[in-house]
Amino acid sequence: MKPTLLTHITLAIMNAQPLIKSKQAEKTIGGVSTQVVCTEFSNYIFVVLTQYGKIGSLISITPDSKTGDISKPMYTTKVLLGKDETLTHVCAKHLASFVSQESGNRPVLLGLALKDSSIESIKIMKELIKTCQVW
Amino acid sequence: MKPTLLTHITLAIMNAQPLIKSKQAEKTIGGVSTQVVCTEFSNYIFVVLTQYGKIGSLISITPDSKTGDISKPMYTTKVLLGKDETLTHVCAKHLASFVSQESGNRPVLLGLALKDSSIESIKIMKELIKTCQVW
Repeated sequence: MKPTLLTHITLAIMNAQPLIKSKQAEKTIGGVSTQVVCTEFSNYIFVVLTQYGKIGSLISITPDSKTGDISKPMYTTKVLLGKDETLTHVCAKHLASFVSQESGNRPVLLGLALKDSSIESIKIMKELIKTCQVW
Repeated sequence: MKPTLLTHITLAIMNAQPLIKSKQAEKTIGGVSTQVVCTEFSNYIFVVLTQYGKIGSLISITPDSKTGDISKPMYTTKVLLGKDETLTHVCAKHLASFVSQESGNRPVLLGLALKDSSIESIKIMKELIKTCQVW
């Protein structure tokens, strides 16, 4: 089948869209400047949450395919870069599970560099991530 | 020392800048739509180069601190996500070494999903990455 004029127009429109969606935000949380960047890929949502301007740890958060209760999915967290500490896994699950859920159970790649990981701050950080919804 | 008016103004100007620099571009290379996103962090340059809209492999490219010849730095590549294949390491070094060099020897975090990894295409991809210079 030869490409028609319609095909060309459709391709032109598709090319005009930004192909990779990315959003960022900044907020002072507990006196600390906090930045977030969210970028959508077809197989991952990439989220960086930083209070140092750097990617400290890099964690993958993957929903488990086998779970007894569909309404409460379980997640496997893996530290790909940085120190493998319990707190990192806990924070990653708190911060990124909802992103995975809302994005059709896509895994999340999370860059994390926090000065303050109190539960109060984590709650506000989740709201900040929500403002950068790209999924 | 109390914050002065100048401190406040300086902080206001700093806050007005986009804190995390990110650029993206798209080009058809060898008939294949290719997207690149580059994001700057203080300790990493994050580059995604994709022909599938996804992060296929995730590779860290780190300059070796100890090298005999300063003019030709060596790099250690590590596959953090995806298949650990020789071709992945080779492509990663070809594509990201110059980013590390130009950004003051910062390590590079490279997301890679290529349909076509011919040397001709890799050269054009390097030029595409250059158009997204955030370092």
